[in-house]
Amino acid sequence: MKPISYGMVGGGEGAFIADVHRRAIALNGGCELTAGLFSRDVEKSRSWAAHLGIEPSRAYASYSEMAQLERQRDDGIRFVVVVTPNASHYAICKAFLQKGIHVVCDKPLTVHSEEAAELAYLSEQSGALLCVTYTNTGYAAVRQMRDMVAQGLVGTIRFVNAEYAQQGMAVRPDALGRWRADPDQSGPSHCVGDIGTHIENLVATITGLRIERLSACLDSFIDGHRLDDNATVMVEYEGGAKGVYWASKIAIGSSNALAIRIYGSAGSLAWQQERPDTIIYTPCGKASQIIDRGSNPYLDVPSRYSRLPAGHPEGIYEAFANIYRSFLATLAGKAEPFPTAIEGLDGVRFIEACLASSGKDGAWVAL
Amino acid sequence: MKPISYGMVGGGEGAFIADVHRRAIALNGGCELTAGLFSRDVEKSRSWAAHLGIEPSRAYASYSEMAQLERQRDDGIRFVVVVTPNASHYAICKAFLQKGIHVVCDKPLTVHSEEAAELAYLSEQSGALLCVTYTNTGYAAVRQMRDMVAQGLVGTIRFVNAEYAQQGMAVRPDALGRWRADPDQSGPSHCVGDIGTHIENLVATITGLRIERLSACLDSFIDGHRLDDNATVMVEYEGGAKGVYWASKIAIGSSNALAIRIYGSAGSLAWQQERPDTIIYTPCGKASQIIDRGSNPYLDVPSRYSRLPAGHPEGIYEAFANIYRSFLATLAGKAEPFPTAIEGLDGVRFIEACLASSGKDGAWVAL
Amino acid sequence: MKPISYGMVGGGEGAFIADVHRRAIALNGGCELTAGLFSRDVEKSRSWAAHLGIEPSRAYASYSEMAQLERQRDDGIRFVVVVTPNASHYAICKAFLQKGIHVVCDKPLTVHSEEAAELAYLSEQSGALLCVTYTNTGYAAVRQMRDMVAQGLVGTIRFVNAEYAQQGMAVRPDALGRWRADPDQSGPSHCVGDIGTHIENLVATITGLRIERLSACLDSFIDGHRLDDNATVMVEYEGGAKGVYWASKIAIGSSNALAIRIYGSAGSLAWQQERPDTIIYTPCGKASQIIDRGSNPYLDVPSRYSRLPAGHPEGIYEAFANIYRSFLATLAGKAEPFPTAIEGLDGVRFIEACLASSGKDGAWVAL
Amino acid sequence: MKPISYGMVGGGEGAFIADVHRRAIALNGGCELTAGLFSRDVEKSRSWAAHLGIEPSRAYASYSEMAQLERQRDDGIRFVVVVTPNASHYAICKAFLQKGIHVVCDKPLTVHSEEAAELAYLSEQSGALLCVTYTNTGYAAVRQMRDMVAQGLVGTIRFVNAEYAQQGMAVRPDALGRWRADPDQSGPSHCVGDIGTHIENLVATITGLRIERLSACLDSFIDGHRLDDNATVMVEYEGGAKGVYWASKIAIGSSNALAIRIYGSAGSLAWQQERPDTIIYTPCGKASQIIDRGSNPYLDVPSRYSRLPAGHPEGIYEAFANIYRSFLATLAGKAEPFPTAIEGLDGVRFIEACLASSGKDGAWVAL
Repeated sequence: MKPISYGMVGGGEGAFIADVHRRAIALNGGCELTAGLFSRDVEKSRSWAAHLGIEPSRAYASYSEMAQLERQRDDGIRFVVVVTPNASHYAICKAFLQKGIHVVCDKPLTVHSEEAAELAYLSEQSGALLCVTYTNTGYAAVRQMRDMVAQGLVGTIRFVNAEYAQQGMAVRPDALGRWRADPDQSGPSHCVGDIGTHIENLVATITGLRIERLSACLDSFIDGHRLDDNATVMVEYEGGAKGVYWASKIAIGSSNALAIRIYGSAGSLAWQQERPDTIIYTPCGKASQIIDRGSNPYLDVPSRYSRLPAGHPEGIYEAFANIYRSFLATLAGKAEPFPTAIEGLDGVRFIEACLASSGKDGAWVAL
Repeated sequence: MKPISYGMVGGGEGAFIADVHRRAIALNGGCELTAGLFSRDVEKSRSWAAHLGIEPSRAYASYSEMAQLERQRDDGIRFVVVVTPNASHYAICKAFLQKGIHVVCDKPLTVHSEEAAELAYLSEQSGALLCVTYTNTGYAAVRQMRDMVAQGLVGTIRFVNAEYAQQGMAVRPDALGRWRADPDQSGPSHCVGDIGTHIENLVATITGLRIERLSACLDSFIDGHRLDDNATVMVEYEGGAKGVYWASKIAIGSSNALAIRIYGSAGSLAWQQERPDTIIYTPCGKASQIIDRGSNPYLDVPSRYSRLPAGHPEGIYEAFANIYRSFLATLAGKAEPFPTAIEGLDGVRFIEACLASSGKDGAWVAL
Repeated sequence: MKPISYGMVGGGEGAFIADVHRRAIALNGGCELTAGLFSRDVEKSRSWAAHLGIEPSRAYASYSEMAQLERQRDDGIRFVVVVTPNASHYAICKAFLQKGIHVVCDKPLTVHSEEAAELAYLSEQSGALLCVTYTNTGYAAVRQMRDMVAQGLVGTIRFVNAEYAQQGMAVRPDALGRWRADPDQSGPSHCVGDIGTHIENLVATITGLRIERLSACLDSFIDGHRLDDNATVMVEYEGGAKGVYWASKIAIGSSNALAIRIYGSAGSLAWQQERPDTIIYTPCGKASQIIDRGSNPYLDVPSRYSRLPAGHPEGIYEAFANIYRSFLATLAGKAEPFPTAIEGLDGVRFIEACLASSGKDGAWVAL
Repeated sequence: MKPISYGMVGGGEGAFIADVHRRAIALNGGCELTAGLFSRDVEKSRSWAAHLGIEPSRAYASYSEMAQLERQRDDGIRFVVVVTPNASHYAICKAFLQKGIHVVCDKPLTVHSEEAAELAYLSEQSGALLCVTYTNTGYAAVRQMRDMVAQGLVGTIRFVNAEYAQQGMAVRPDALGRWRADPDQSGPSHCVGDIGTHIENLVATITGLRIERLSACLDSFIDGHRLDDNATVMVEYEGGAKGVYWASKIAIGSSNALAIRIYGSAGSLAWQQERPDTIIYTPCGKASQIIDRGSNPYLDVPSRYSRLPAGHPEGIYEAFANIYRSFLATLAGKAEPFPTAIEGLDGVRFIEACLASSGKDGAWVAL
């Protein structure tokens, strides 16, 4: 099989998440990075492209040129990975979608929901796929919980408690200087935009619940921080279920502690990202069960999304690889669910609603 | 030493919490149960009194008679333990305080804050102590966390996340028939009144923070339940810290999962009631530490409130016994902090504020 | 009901385990400490007796005098608690048994198995009960595991892995000066005698397995330590099951970490003393289950040995109290199993076999 | 950079560990699978080779032919991955080493130690590297623990307790039919050969301790099993430290539970493979610390072997990839430690010693 060519915008030397994308794609196999624009500094971009084995002629100086020229090549890239700061996602995604090149973009999809809606429309129009890498939806256990909910194992959902706790802003001296703390690059929200949106997407993915309205309190506890670093959100879903979300960048002791608990009429589910292989499932009135990603007694078939037997730890690369796997399967004509512009738009709307509610002292805001 | 005589109102055969009171008092030693009114059914009360070794003449038919007659005896009870359903606390406590008999009463202290305020005033006036058994404040680890906060080990507190999850209403077929689900006996709140108030008191005890205002959503998910069985509360404290509380009676998989996490500028603390001997303390930018109740390196002296070396589990009796220990020390003239009518009043005001806010669709309510 | 009088030998001011005995007895209720010999220093003993509320005439100067005089009183003690260093157990227990006074003695029962056998014989002869306080057998979860094994929930037992890890000798500067490190007071073994014997008894209690032979390696890692502070024992049981025990006093990081795992043909059980309320049970080929002491779905009736609902932590006092409860029930004519001189003798024989094997470079020693 | 060509022997469709090798290599990047022999069934091998994108001319019918022909090509493979059943490792490795082709082979390296010694000699002679994939040595946390021991953070090691518990033989109905249960393919040991050897290597890697002698009990609990499925080993290291190893294939409830605890004079370390990112470190007399692979405060530089920040889970692919990374760095002239034929030989000698000791009723066997 000839490998599928792909390009990348952003992700220069030292960029953490771009490296994760490249390795996750490699874990699946079958793709080759052949074009890119890795930095606004052209020299740096070229030198990094060379390091990655990209031909000099395909190390570009602008994303519009890249979209244009790759479109014209017979062997042009089939998809582009966008891993730049949030504020630039919209223009870059648009440039590629308009040329019919499929796009994989980091979350949040855009800074404004109008932009996200436009990208969703462009994707629909052009037939070019737009995948938003909500990482956590790729974990095998997350997909299994989605299936368990769909099979009725928790019954009617009553309440969801989800949180994402990080300590970065409290413990890193340089935290204020990073792009996520800068409104011009990050958009109007730091904490909700970066991690709150993961909560929203994770809950939606597993439960299928849609938020009807929310009441949010965003705070900024770090001196000099112009954006939010902590957020509490009370949520009401369509159909009567309720929830509470908490996202924080000042939670000393927590590295990357995303956690979700789902309470229904027939049972509950609990999962923590830092121990991604384990689900705790409690059927109503029975003992809690420790379920391993690799041996889930409630799923008829072993999950396609787990590559390893129980007890062999999988991590974030595997989660990313699963999202790419579904994206590439769809590209190959065998549609599989992955987070699209629709989920991306939901995410931006969630961020906007949180900001709006918090700006009105926690007033309820409909979505 | 002659034992201290005490009486009990409520706590007939099979009453769980009354038994805990009696055993916790025995664990401390030095007290003797000599009078009581154990049931509204006089025969049952007398027979249970006999079982407990109480003289027939001191098995009473009404609490006012009991207060009256015990007051007149030379060897009358020095304190009474009130373990009846919430709605009757006020009248019973009042009867004994008016006779100058010290009172230990279960939480919530009363159903209305005016009543709690009156009891606080009566206690002040009469010199009779009024202790409200907020159990969790008795755990050695809780008292250690209070000291750690006071020593500045977490710095300025920024955010508190506390929760109390139980599954009782979801899993017990007879749950709707219990007195806690009945407004006439339980008062206007079930979930907040029974367990939400523990969260409020635990946070206040450890941190010293006072709630300025709150926004609450109370829900009733169980069909036929006339009171709340789930509650989310966003909290703002005096001085700028924030918090979120979640209490639930429908959290399948949780027996009695009270948990608190405190995030400050210099560190964080985390504790779970179901593993009461262990504190997780994270100094800012350092590794998290597992601290055992019996060997806390941050306290200069071994705690008086732990009876056992590290690794020998203490439980709820020891917590109760610690509250009684402080109450009895104060009775003996060596004042030690224990939860008084003031904390009891704070608790009832918290419940009322939650009900008020929830009744106004989560509007902020000042305390 | 008139309280049952009891006496104590050992357990002066500051003695940890004697205090646990007294409080555990109080937790049950119905007993009263009325006589004692608390120290070899008569003045100290008398002053401590007074502190405990004992009449001066019943604060004795020798245990033989105490046995003699208490025997002659109409209101003499019905049982005595022996909480002295190991080497003195034999003579003290003998003195009381010969007078027909029931005895509760700490483990190990004696230093030599001949002594233990003699005590067993004396107990049998005199009809005076001899209870050896193997604490861990009192935990509700331990009694539940015993019942689960008996019900066949693990099938035929194949392998047992049990351990008891403490750090005391490695971290306490004064460890070498304590009586347990002194052969004259402690007997010929420190680590196996103090905690290894708990492993042996715990396994026997839960599984009913009897050791056929063992191979042991005892080591002394602390400079100047004249006794063992670490031991590994390979065990073969009658019937073909095998096991491995590890006991250590040099396990830095472990306070009191007794743990057992039992593997059978139909399932497995795991339990840790430091989290005594939780059993992990895995039926063969199914998910592991988290079982709470207070809500064990495999037992038909709620356990009599748990005083509290699930989620309300019980600890070491409750374990001790359960042993006393069974002892007292038996005293009252309703026989309940508790660890007797037979178990005490098994324990001493186990210690002797470990010493013998280790002395012969780990050669197998039959029991 | 031109990719490095590699080949594979074994690892046909459905072979779990071969797939892990391929993905782990891809995670590092820079290598390409260009030749192979995937099955003794030539048709299956060819069809799988085609699936993997290998040219038909390089899908071989025998390993000797493969070694021969690849040696002759200018673009021949630089290394071969051997993932066949144990009994065939020796001949295959030998064939490639004799042609000067580097080899990566699964553990155990061979069935007999003479064979392993010969391969070590051949590797030395030919200059062809021989890497034995003791997976666990690749985990970032394992390499960090090795560095922590080397820095003296645990002081002089006194005792090691290590175990590897799996449930496969007890819960899988087809377990007896798998090649590992067949002496002809697996060699003379199942449990020690498959997982006991991982314990031996893990301890040696982290601590540097060398086993002086051991006493082992191997058992076969599953009816019809011709090899061992459970093993206990008492170990004495050069220099006076001691240890105990337990490996089991019948440990119901355990998927892949490799765990190690190291006790020294200055501290202890504990690690579990199923939660590979977390180390528990206890300095003598201090609180235990939870150390994350991504943020180890005791190492001066962030580890090269961790690709992700703390809280982003890494798993078994990353462990494998780290071994390949060190192997490939060495291939490129920058020597880095990886498990070689020497470790492979140590492993086989360990297995032989266990079998010898167990055959002599646990007699001590020197290594």
